[in-house]
Amino acid sequence: MILTVTLNTALDITYRVRSLRPHASHRVSAVTERPGGKGLNVARVLAALGHEATVTGFAGGGTGRAVREGLSAISGVVDALVPVGGSTRRTIAVVDELTGDTTQLNEPGPQITPMEWSAFLDTYEDLLAEASAVALCGSLPPGVPVGAYAGLVRTARTTGAPVLLDTSGEPLRRGVAARPDIIKPNTDELAELTGSHDPLRATQDARRRGARAVVASLGSEGLLAVTPEGRWRATLPTHVHGNPTGAGDSAVAGLLSGLVEQMPWPDRLARSVALSAATVRAPVAGEFDRVEYENLVGRVAVTGEATAA
Amino acid sequence: MILTVTLNTALDITYRVRSLRPHASHRVSAVTERPGGKGLNVARVLAALGHEATVTGFAGGGTGRAVREGLSAISGVVDALVPVGGSTRRTIAVVDELTGDTTQLNEPGPQITPMEWSAFLDTYEDLLAEASAVALCGSLPPGVPVGAYAGLVRTARTTGAPVLLDTSGEPLRRGVAARPDIIKPNTDELAELTGSHDPLRATQDARRRGARAVVASLGSEGLLAVTPEGRWRATLPTHVHGNPTGAGDSAVAGLLSGLVEQMPWPDRLARSVALSAATVRAPVAGEFDRVEYENLVGRVAVTGEATAA
Repeated sequence: MILTVTLNTALDITYRVRSLRPHASHRVSAVTERPGGKGLNVARVLAALGHEATVTGFAGGGTGRAVREGLSAISGVVDALVPVGGSTRRTIAVVDELTGDTTQLNEPGPQITPMEWSAFLDTYEDLLAEASAVALCGSLPPGVPVGAYAGLVRTARTTGAPVLLDTSGEPLRRGVAARPDIIKPNTDELAELTGSHDPLRATQDARRRGARAVVASLGSEGLLAVTPEGRWRATLPTHVHGNPTGAGDSAVAGLLSGLVEQMPWPDRLARSVALSAATVRAPVAGEFDRVEYENLVGRVAVTGEATAA
Repeated sequence: MILTVTLNTALDITYRVRSLRPHASHRVSAVTERPGGKGLNVARVLAALGHEATVTGFAGGGTGRAVREGLSAISGVVDALVPVGGSTRRTIAVVDELTGDTTQLNEPGPQITPMEWSAFLDTYEDLLAEASAVALCGSLPPGVPVGAYAGLVRTARTTGAPVLLDTSGEPLRRGVAARPDIIKPNTDELAELTGSHDPLRATQDARRRGARAVVASLGSEGLLAVTPEGRWRATLPTHVHGNPTGAGDSAVAGLLSGLVEQMPWPDRLARSVALSAATVRAPVAGEFDRVEYENLVGRVAVTGEATAA
């Protein structure tokens, strides 16, 4: 199975309002809820691609219960979340009906105690024994040490499971130094890590900091991958419109499934770009449209070259 | 006991953000949650005044569980909420740290089935047998007939329990026609009911529509009461600054407790105005500050006269 770690799981709530105006009162016309957090989104897409995915991280309180109930309805995803005393955070996306624009409110997440963190580390080690690959995803809840991902990368390396790290800021900086197999920063995250706004230069710099392969997500410009096996650029010929929520998580699922299936890099990148675009095009935020995906995957242009053996 | 009915209970959530900007992403710095809905707020204040209060209405889902857990921690308040299949709504108050201004997002509430509505009516009748007074408070969730309050007023009248109705719009219009003992509209609700923006004229008109007594809440201008026993105006000598959330519910608790204690109208009004102001001044939204209340209650000026016998 593929293991995804989401330390700061979330109950993702979407509100529709006519038009959000600060300091006014709004009647919400529609409410939807789904289990969220990057690693949960990655697992959902992995399961849709036919992989068995196990999710771990933390869940607690009434919101944690709602996350677990939602997870239990997704076939192919196994819930190995660790219970905590605090409450799983909510994220609220307020969608303006007039413009389609979204305002986001993200709770910080529960305070994790040292005992809960230690219980998670035990669970993580147990799960690693079965894992063909690991994705470490998203922000850290309060109480989790900022170097957490570095430790989780090192533990995974002792079992031989390849590790993809998808986070930002200081947790990314520290995690990269522990030598993960893949990181998938977007341009902002890459610039924050390296200080450079030039994607190629920043990607190369991120590799020097410890990442074995760097797959930079350039938004509508596709993916730029710099790896020991070669360097590629993958793009769609046409611009895709829609809701970008979850597009990065679908890209991670594409990279990870391709790695486990031992696909060559160009095929992994094509799958990632197509999954990402099929997520942007899907009517429900964070889901991917399978028909779109099948249509798009053959149309991704991958340029670049393998490193001379 | 005093019975308060809240058909659309809520989990009231408060977020603090630096400054709310539409279409941006916000990190919430602090989250608080409390059981809400007007009748629950009224019951909380009644209990603080030493009355036994029973709350009924609907609760369901994870949010309903959170409401009931919160209620169980309030001494003097008995939970007689009726379980439903849908989820209790959330209300989200987003407070700007820079300005203190609040943006409100209110979910519509669960869809109530005819069977759930019928179960509520049975519970309501049972509770009425024990009730010395009843408050019918707030909006109606989807599925509850718009004439619901009119029916609940009539049922209460058959048991002799005096009824205070605090709602707005069409539910208020229909409820008033069923002859409740007291209504407590604010100026907007009164204008919507009567078409008149003149408080005295509108208050008199609301009585002609069926309300036995009308206590109009004029915000910082205090209360205007027009009743069969006389006509009074109650105001504080100084303007009170703070958060008006729950001030109207505290006023209802003042009127209802005064009625049950058989206080003369001027004393009821003084209590209501002081409770309302002590709620505005309290550091926590919706709570009242007891010391402020004790200080203020003697300073309320009540003018007017009793009807000649």
